[in-house]
Amino acid sequence: MTAGLSCRFLLAQLNFNVGDLKGNEEKINSVCDYAQKSHVDIIIFPEMAISGYPIKDLIFDRDFLESELKSLTNIAQNFPDLTIILGGFGQEKNPNHHPRYQNNAYILADGKIQSSIAKRLTPTYDVFDEKRYFWSGTDFTPITLHKLNIGIAICEDLWDHDYQLDVASKLVQNGANFIVSINGSPYHIQKQKTRETLINEKAAKHKIPIIYLNAVGGQDELVFDGRSFVCNSNGEIILRAPFCRESLMVLDYNLQTEDFSYIPASKLPKHRSLLNSINKNTLNDLLLPDLNSDLIPENAISDLFSIEEEICSALTLNLRDYFVKTGVFSQIVVGLSGGIDSAFTAYIASKAIGSERVTALLMPSKYSSSGSIDDSILLCQNLGIKYYILPITDSHAFLRKQFDEILEIPGTEYYEDLADQNLQSRLRGLFLMYYANKYQALLVSTGNKSEIATGYCTLYGDTNGGKNVPGDLYKTQLYKVVSWINREEEIIPSAIITKPPSAELKENQKDEDNLPPYPLLDEILQLRIDEGYSPREIIAMGKDPELVRRIEEMYTRAEFKRAQLAQTIKINKKTFGSGRKIPVLKRSFY
Amino acid sequence: MTAGLSCRFLLAQLNFNVGDLKGNEEKINSVCDYAQKSHVDIIIFPEMAISGYPIKDLIFDRDFLESELKSLTNIAQNFPDLTIILGGFGQEKNPNHHPRYQNNAYILADGKIQSSIAKRLTPTYDVFDEKRYFWSGTDFTPITLHKLNIGIAICEDLWDHDYQLDVASKLVQNGANFIVSINGSPYHIQKQKTRETLINEKAAKHKIPIIYLNAVGGQDELVFDGRSFVCNSNGEIILRAPFCRESLMVLDYNLQTEDFSYIPASKLPKHRSLLNSINKNTLNDLLLPDLNSDLIPENAISDLFSIEEEICSALTLNLRDYFVKTGVFSQIVVGLSGGIDSAFTAYIASKAIGSERVTALLMPSKYSSSGSIDDSILLCQNLGIKYYILPITDSHAFLRKQFDEILEIPGTEYYEDLADQNLQSRLRGLFLMYYANKYQALLVSTGNKSEIATGYCTLYGDTNGGKNVPGDLYKTQLYKVVSWINREEEIIPSAIITKPPSAELKENQKDEDNLPPYPLLDEILQLRIDEGYSPREIIAMGKDPELVRRIEEMYTRAEFKRAQLAQTIKINKKTFGSGRKIPVLKRSFY
Repeated sequence: MTAGLSCRFLLAQLNFNVGDLKGNEEKINSVCDYAQKSHVDIIIFPEMAISGYPIKDLIFDRDFLESELKSLTNIAQNFPDLTIILGGFGQEKNPNHHPRYQNNAYILADGKIQSSIAKRLTPTYDVFDEKRYFWSGTDFTPITLHKLNIGIAICEDLWDHDYQLDVASKLVQNGANFIVSINGSPYHIQKQKTRETLINEKAAKHKIPIIYLNAVGGQDELVFDGRSFVCNSNGEIILRAPFCRESLMVLDYNLQTEDFSYIPASKLPKHRSLLNSINKNTLNDLLLPDLNSDLIPENAISDLFSIEEEICSALTLNLRDYFVKTGVFSQIVVGLSGGIDSAFTAYIASKAIGSERVTALLMPSKYSSSGSIDDSILLCQNLGIKYYILPITDSHAFLRKQFDEILEIPGTEYYEDLADQNLQSRLRGLFLMYYANKYQALLVSTGNKSEIATGYCTLYGDTNGGKNVPGDLYKTQLYKVVSWINREEEIIPSAIITKPPSAELKENQKDEDNLPPYPLLDEILQLRIDEGYSPREIIAMGKDPELVRRIEEMYTRAEFKRAQLAQTIKINKKTFGSGRKIPVLKRSFY
Repeated sequence: MTAGLSCRFLLAQLNFNVGDLKGNEEKINSVCDYAQKSHVDIIIFPEMAISGYPIKDLIFDRDFLESELKSLTNIAQNFPDLTIILGGFGQEKNPNHHPRYQNNAYILADGKIQSSIAKRLTPTYDVFDEKRYFWSGTDFTPITLHKLNIGIAICEDLWDHDYQLDVASKLVQNGANFIVSINGSPYHIQKQKTRETLINEKAAKHKIPIIYLNAVGGQDELVFDGRSFVCNSNGEIILRAPFCRESLMVLDYNLQTEDFSYIPASKLPKHRSLLNSINKNTLNDLLLPDLNSDLIPENAISDLFSIEEEICSALTLNLRDYFVKTGVFSQIVVGLSGGIDSAFTAYIASKAIGSERVTALLMPSKYSSSGSIDDSILLCQNLGIKYYILPITDSHAFLRKQFDEILEIPGTEYYEDLADQNLQSRLRGLFLMYYANKYQALLVSTGNKSEIATGYCTLYGDTNGGKNVPGDLYKTQLYKVVSWINREEEIIPSAIITKPPSAELKENQKDEDNLPPYPLLDEILQLRIDEGYSPREIIAMGKDPELVRRIEEMYTRAEFKRAQLAQTIKINKKTFGSGRKIPVLKRSFY
């Protein structure tokens, strides 16, 4: 025990399940048990750890709050000698009011719920809906724990650049000499840079150390990427947790020298029961073969990743969590077209749950090049995944013939029209779902962001699936990521990367027949969607007005498709999904 | 002109298009022109009339606000002698803050935007997301117009029972002697009773007349049902506009006697150009064959509807608006199974856009009873819609054979499993979409709320479609509505109503093989979904615990399906769609 001279913290960067109070309680208990054996004074869990985050309208389930408080009380009673800072939601003060709850940091100590602090800034933009659920806290009093006056912040509380309220300053004014921030901060590309810049500046400005603890895990379209960190009162990073991996990190803070010292795994006790409990339901065993060594990093500061490595790790985590946490699937199935999108998706699926649990269907039509099949077979061999070849040529012809006869459609007139192209895509979708239903497989869809933005996809066809993997990656981003994947050996066959993109749904079809070239298209889409510029502004930047208008029309018209797509995974700033609330029925004012 | 002694109001209960500034401006101009010719002093339009409502994230389009203000200025300049109260969104005061805008009532007079009043209560629950967009107004000063001190309220401002702020009292305290409330108030069953009770009580309490003006139209899953009304200072209804129909209603208010008098169509000028402009893009011609007579009611107080008539009118309006406002469809196509859901859907489609624009596909399999086909044919004849018969028996067998051979599945073992049942449903979905793509038809899906709640439907099969018609009606509600439809003559054949519900996807299949009997099921679902009771509470009401748990499991597990369904139409209190934000990935805490 370090009482008196220093305070030992355990940062629990863990993966919790939305709604799963019992499972989350059990996990927290295991880690607290480990903390106690490791002489920890204060253990910190992420925002809304006990309930999972974001729980959205589940919060209105009438028995949820009571059950949550019971879980918190149980935990507190189990560990009377430990101080636990833990996120959860709080009691309604004015039962009839909108909104009803608060987003709290609970302090569990002395065997009870000692106090709670409510989040003051409740984000309500992009993927955040917090004003629907939470009224804002107004208490800025630090809490004295182990001789530290700890100002507690909850996520947005420190992201104050768009608000009039400066929470950090208020905490310091009220006597805080240490800040602990608990977070459920979702990933987008290189977000960690923004986080560290923001927090380090606050630390340096106020001459105060800050512990920033983030959750990890995939939840619907979000990835909580972890990357918890600590900066000292000079605003220097002295600890950085791994990306997209559960981690426990122990560090001592000397109250006199105000220095931190990190305790690596090798200097901490080993506990297999802890790991077993953490691994359960999160398939961490794929990541964490050894005892403590992968869960408790040896180094205090883990390296930042390249953009490409970030993207692969984030997608892998989200897909794995979807697969494991739903608990109903025995394998993943993916349709391979011979193109880069589906090849990349198969790669991520293999990484997520192991290639032995992934199956590919290859479904050539009479428009498919022989290369498409050969390339896909090579890919399957490289990844070590099972595949079946199921030509759709005969069934396509059979269905067409029956249908055209009954509707008296002249056979050749419309031959390669949109209806016929969609029919092929839907026939493949139907086979994939047949396989999925037969073998309890999760079908993953493979459409990229450029396609989804322009509607260059077939509803109930190639869009079928419980999870879309590359749907927040523009085609040009995909090429870069695939190049990174192939950095040491050719995992994704080069023929797949170099061939001109084609849906292969009619003779000699190329994506560029219907879409602008991807580099041009993606640049304009990114300005429009992720950066939020208007078409007028994009034209004013010097882009071709005709092209901007054509892309805008495709983008707007495809809204009805996006309303029915599988959830994708957030990578860029603005992701199709819950963070983008666009009416389906609308007209443009342009 | 009535200046001095009385004030003439025109209540413009109209249908506006989301995002369509130009179209909305044009419509407002036509009506203002008519108002001027009818010696109106004050014309009132609904909440957010100029932009359409709810515009959701379109509000963040950077050029929208500027364009909107230009439209408002144009309108004001066109009618300097008219006072116009008109909803729109307002300028950001603190550009960097969340949220950025205000939900305003604009007062246009003397040829300019004279002033604006911001909504004080911004609802953020169920289908409302207003705190994402709007900061709350704090001004309660009445505006003096034509010698009246008018307190202006915007929708939620008068729905104060869940807030600490009583806007009506504040307005009265500040000197209001008249209240005008502009609304975008969405329909659910019998909502008008709640509205009138609420508003009449406020009028009587404050001894003040209230004009309540609502929008009309279908927008995504919402129906704005109109039903504008006026109550005098005794809290008595003296005007009630029609349900789900555009209407213009003129009434004089005598400033000395404080009496209202209604001006019927027969005493007002006729203007074909007005009607033409209103009909454009809303297909009102189906409703409004005559000149002014249907647009300006002869009677001040229109009758309330039965629940069944409300439901049919609301669904009809929403489907028509989706069809017309998207502007890309030439017809509606629906798959008829011989069951009540699809029969009802075909009926609503015929009402919405005329039976000559509706096509049915009948797609029997070897499991279909001959009755199913005969009944569907009779239905088509009754409705006067075209149909095609497209048996799926051969194509089902063809696809099965090919698939089972390649995957080496023994042909009989799995014969009637779930994969095979879904395959049939998806084959029908594929044909329906082939037809839709071929003929620019809108495919409407036919699943009811009991099915969607329990997941008793096939994704990419019977759920295919751009709009779901009965998806917010429980099966037992559907029976009541169909009875009402058949009240005078048998439009929906009785065999369709009396046969035991079946998906007919395997031999002798009945819904009750997989689902509890509908009366039991629906009662529990309604308590759970619409009334928000927890399973524990429902069991405490005396329901069978085993049944409640079984239904809860089905309900929870089907979330991934609901995440990909076509938009439905709000009828009950809680509708699957944007008002219900439930994570797909979750576990139950029960």
